[in-house]
Amino acid sequence: MNDAHTVTQPDSGTSTHLTVAPVAPGTGSLRPLGIDKVRISGGFWGHRQQLNRDAIIPHIARWQERVGWHANFDAVVNGTIAASRTGREFSDSEVYKLLEAMSWEIARTGDQELERRLQAIVDRIEPAQQPDGYLNTRHGNPGQPPRYSDLEWGHELYCYGHLIQAAVARIRSGHHDRLVEIACRAADHICDTFGPTGLAGICGHPEIETALVELYRATGQSRYLRQARLFLDRRGRHSLQDIEYGRSYFQDDIPIADAQVLRGHAVRALYLAAGAVDAAVEEQDRSLAEAVEHQYQRALRRRTYLTGGMGSHHQDEAFGDDFELPPDRAYCETCAGVASIMVSWRLLLATGNLGYADTIERTLYNVIAASPSTDGTAFFYTNPLQQRVAGQPSDPDEVSPRAHAQLRAPWFEVSCCPPNVARTLAQLATYVATTSTDGVQVLQYVPGEISAALGDGRHAHLSVSTRYPDDGEVAVTVVGAPRDSWTLTLRIPAWAEGATVEVDGKVAQAHAPSHTVHDAAAGSRITLRLPIAPRWTVANPKVDAVRGTIAVERGPLVLCAESVDLPDGADVQALRIDSTQPLRALGDGAAAAGTLLAPQEDTEQLYRPDAYAEDGRDIELPLIPYYRWANRGPSTMRVWIPTR
Amino acid sequence: MNDAHTVTQPDSGTSTHLTVAPVAPGTGSLRPLGIDKVRISGGFWGHRQQLNRDAIIPHIARWQERVGWHANFDAVVNGTIAASRTGREFSDSEVYKLLEAMSWEIARTGDQELERRLQAIVDRIEPAQQPDGYLNTRHGNPGQPPRYSDLEWGHELYCYGHLIQAAVARIRSGHHDRLVEIACRAADHICDTFGPTGLAGICGHPEIETALVELYRATGQSRYLRQARLFLDRRGRHSLQDIEYGRSYFQDDIPIADAQVLRGHAVRALYLAAGAVDAAVEEQDRSLAEAVEHQYQRALRRRTYLTGGMGSHHQDEAFGDDFELPPDRAYCETCAGVASIMVSWRLLLATGNLGYADTIERTLYNVIAASPSTDGTAFFYTNPLQQRVAGQPSDPDEVSPRAHAQLRAPWFEVSCCPPNVARTLAQLATYVATTSTDGVQVLQYVPGEISAALGDGRHAHLSVSTRYPDDGEVAVTVVGAPRDSWTLTLRIPAWAEGATVEVDGKVAQAHAPSHTVHDAAAGSRITLRLPIAPRWTVANPKVDAVRGTIAVERGPLVLCAESVDLPDGADVQALRIDSTQPLRALGDGAAAAGTLLAPQEDTEQLYRPDAYAEDGRDIELPLIPYYRWANRGPSTMRVWIPTR
Repeated sequence: MNDAHTVTQPDSGTSTHLTVAPVAPGTGSLRPLGIDKVRISGGFWGHRQQLNRDAIIPHIARWQERVGWHANFDAVVNGTIAASRTGREFSDSEVYKLLEAMSWEIARTGDQELERRLQAIVDRIEPAQQPDGYLNTRHGNPGQPPRYSDLEWGHELYCYGHLIQAAVARIRSGHHDRLVEIACRAADHICDTFGPTGLAGICGHPEIETALVELYRATGQSRYLRQARLFLDRRGRHSLQDIEYGRSYFQDDIPIADAQVLRGHAVRALYLAAGAVDAAVEEQDRSLAEAVEHQYQRALRRRTYLTGGMGSHHQDEAFGDDFELPPDRAYCETCAGVASIMVSWRLLLATGNLGYADTIERTLYNVIAASPSTDGTAFFYTNPLQQRVAGQPSDPDEVSPRAHAQLRAPWFEVSCCPPNVARTLAQLATYVATTSTDGVQVLQYVPGEISAALGDGRHAHLSVSTRYPDDGEVAVTVVGAPRDSWTLTLRIPAWAEGATVEVDGKVAQAHAPSHTVHDAAAGSRITLRLPIAPRWTVANPKVDAVRGTIAVERGPLVLCAESVDLPDGADVQALRIDSTQPLRALGDGAAAAGTLLAPQEDTEQLYRPDAYAEDGRDIELPLIPYYRWANRGPSTMRVWIPTR
Repeated sequence: MNDAHTVTQPDSGTSTHLTVAPVAPGTGSLRPLGIDKVRISGGFWGHRQQLNRDAIIPHIARWQERVGWHANFDAVVNGTIAASRTGREFSDSEVYKLLEAMSWEIARTGDQELERRLQAIVDRIEPAQQPDGYLNTRHGNPGQPPRYSDLEWGHELYCYGHLIQAAVARIRSGHHDRLVEIACRAADHICDTFGPTGLAGICGHPEIETALVELYRATGQSRYLRQARLFLDRRGRHSLQDIEYGRSYFQDDIPIADAQVLRGHAVRALYLAAGAVDAAVEEQDRSLAEAVEHQYQRALRRRTYLTGGMGSHHQDEAFGDDFELPPDRAYCETCAGVASIMVSWRLLLATGNLGYADTIERTLYNVIAASPSTDGTAFFYTNPLQQRVAGQPSDPDEVSPRAHAQLRAPWFEVSCCPPNVARTLAQLATYVATTSTDGVQVLQYVPGEISAALGDGRHAHLSVSTRYPDDGEVAVTVVGAPRDSWTLTLRIPAWAEGATVEVDGKVAQAHAPSHTVHDAAAGSRITLRLPIAPRWTVANPKVDAVRGTIAVERGPLVLCAESVDLPDGADVQALRIDSTQPLRALGDGAAAAGTLLAPQEDTEQLYRPDAYAEDGRDIELPLIPYYRWANRGPSTMRVWIPTR
């Protein structure tokens, strides 16, 4: 066990464990680039990475300390945990997600002060681990429920999963420290306990599956891959109890390979899908990979909001039925956005389908970017597409008991989302580009540098300059390139009708999903022009909840109407948009549309025999990017606006 | 305390305690008739009263015994309850609701076998009561949480409330037995414990308030009224903890008189409103009565489904925001329908506004009647207006862990609805007619006899013959009547445009809310003709969830489309109704409409720039009464149908 964390060649024979990135598969159509190979120098996401470092990560660390989630580990050591524990059953996992965010941030910036703070937290976790590797502050200590006595809700394996993901971030960034040792001891304990001849259980909340495959990739210890596969194979066989929400809530209703669509608790479903793709890729199990891709594709086609958000139910934080996508009760948990990006990214690497980068872009701009406040000290947990009643501001000094705080809250009783946002922002550079045997694929348009080793060992170095998404022009300068037989591929978003690519003065039409430039020489300049004029978007008529409405998008941004932009304190309920009039572009990704503002009287009957008259006065309605809503005080908001 | 249950004159000086009815106010515009004064001889509701007696009540008694909710009382006596208790924290209340249903049924029919079964249950409850009157199987016994240690969720006072309502049914039907003694001991214990100088708490689930006022009305003990008022006055002052759903969940957010609308958990909100009206009526507190009426009226105008159902959220079983009325996620708990009838009835008696009888009729036909299966052995807990995915039949031998069983279930872990339906059906006759000083008001049209004592002591005896709602003709024969100066008032439903009343051959137009006939002599025959041709109904455009759709109603019945009536196994999702074509009446309250049946392919994108084509073939769509849906196996269903 002592060498469990030493980095060796994976059994698969591939060697991707040194990629400084959260996902480094042994096989696949495309290879990820480490965050040391892609530098985001500014712009939309550079600003958010800075905010993450300066505000979000410190805010999370401060709150976790304040609510006692770090002290829980001390109390395990002192033997006082049963009496003193604070937080929900999964609070350990939030500490581990913070460690993962810190780890990527340290890898990105080499911040030594952050390294010191990370080690200080590890100092408190390490002594709480039991000699056999068991580590949990809610179970298994004197006066607490026994280990693994509540697999439905105990979240022990889920917590290990996030511990392991943090350790993988350390290994991939070249550290082999105590955090890695703790995680490997825990992983070995899991294999010893839940192995083929052990306890035949699974965790109510998937996460351990992807974590164990990643730990296998990072350490080469194949028992971790085998254990992940065992958890995956055990799922869907009713080993967990039936509950009010049904076994579909934790995906224990149907074996993974037999399911037709993602269902149940959205984060659980997506973490499980990510783990299944990871295992399928390492084991070259094409049928498992195809089954999960089919389920995810169907979710994208029938169970996904325009923002990329997933989850239609508040009650069980779950996917709804096909086409059940209510904008006002959209749950769209921020963590489900993070999890959807995890699945899209894995499928993109496995299949080479750049369309998944469209989904990642949509989710990044309209879910992940919407969660933090402009100062990075408050967060959305749910991301509805309509706000009917202006919410009251959250108290910056109070924990919100509500996931659906009407305005962003500084902290939640269930605070999974803030650290999930933090780890995603810290690792963002890995999603910018990939490589293949003889090419580089640019997937996300951010200003910065891309230094790519092709599969055949040759190198390409690109410099990207753009104001995207405020502007549709993306200038790629080839700083260094192979002499010949290489390709530069640019993703063309599905919405980018009329995109062009100019190479050394020659302009060509570009079509989704991608445009490829061959043998661009060092020094050549390639200009991608994406049309980011505001555009109308309609929903499939099967989506009952938005019948008779229309939405406006601009580039990758979903726009919305917010009441603070309406005259005379009018409510967004009163809007009737005229989709026959042209849209007008405004600054900062905003737009304006001709609109009827109906009167606000509430005296009519709720139901009656004949149609209701709709009159009012014409205004030009400003529409702002969805990610910016609720930053100007209490307001009502809607993405889907009724048409005249 | 020993004479607490002896029937004396209420302090208010009125004497209504002998009315064999669930609500007998000391004052008010209209007086209720006891179920001994109104005989329902058959028809729609006569059939359901028979089903209640033959199937529903025995089914409930059998299941409560089977799941151990009666045995819990034995286990308290044996001292084994802490280890052996079954059921949720409020299961005692379901036993008491069964006793109330049995009590009204015995009062209605004099069934001695049922009387024996009622006493057999009382035999098991009585010894579980502690010497000071405390009675609960979940708290306060050795090895259990202490009394009143969890007022948010403990439901102890809620359980007493239903115990007391059962006892009131016994008193009002002339029994002064041990059930009454148990309830009065419990009520005295409550007054001793929660009185002005006692524990200043309230129950997380209102119910005790209306029960204590009713017990005051039935016994004349004014301390019960004072205690009810104390609970009402304490509410809305944050004595209960904040929770994920907010204090509005149990209406502890705002004092009752200050609230603007019903909010939070629908059953809690409505039970509280009923208790507040009861107390306001007895204390002649006009401002409290008007505050509650305003809140209920606003709920009817903004937060009520076409069926009369209330509650838009599954998560917290709560009202949604104004105009948030999703048909697919409608919760519309059957118990909320029962509770809405309780509030409407109290407001009708207090104000004399017969419009409340419209609400009662709508809720009875489209919520209460929808819950039981045709054989009375399975029930709906939630009553959605759209079913997207055909549900699997429930196992007739299994307890459903799900409130939202897709098809009716025989029993639920939370089985509040079946006994609530049973007690409502058993007491139904009281809602048929009222009296005033010099008149009789016929509110619900059922075949049978009405024997009414007017406020001035004179008597009127009516015989009603009708096939309503299958037919709109209602024939009222005056069997006996005062010689002069009396009125017979017939409720005219708001939907009944063009109704007529024929008196001894003379026909007059009749308009909502009522039509009055003066001094009808004994032997005269009055014929009310209500137009029950199918009609179109549209929703206020503020109801986003049904924009672009239309519904069909017929008389008091809301109709729906069910997939089992569609050709080629088509789904209701494919329907586009043509509201420009006439509706055609079919038998059994059904109708048919010209409709486009769109193709069923699911391959289109979820979102796109341009409108989706809608084509298909024309069919004549059968629409059945909503209460009859899901009786022909798994199906999809919708009330609101998209227009062409």
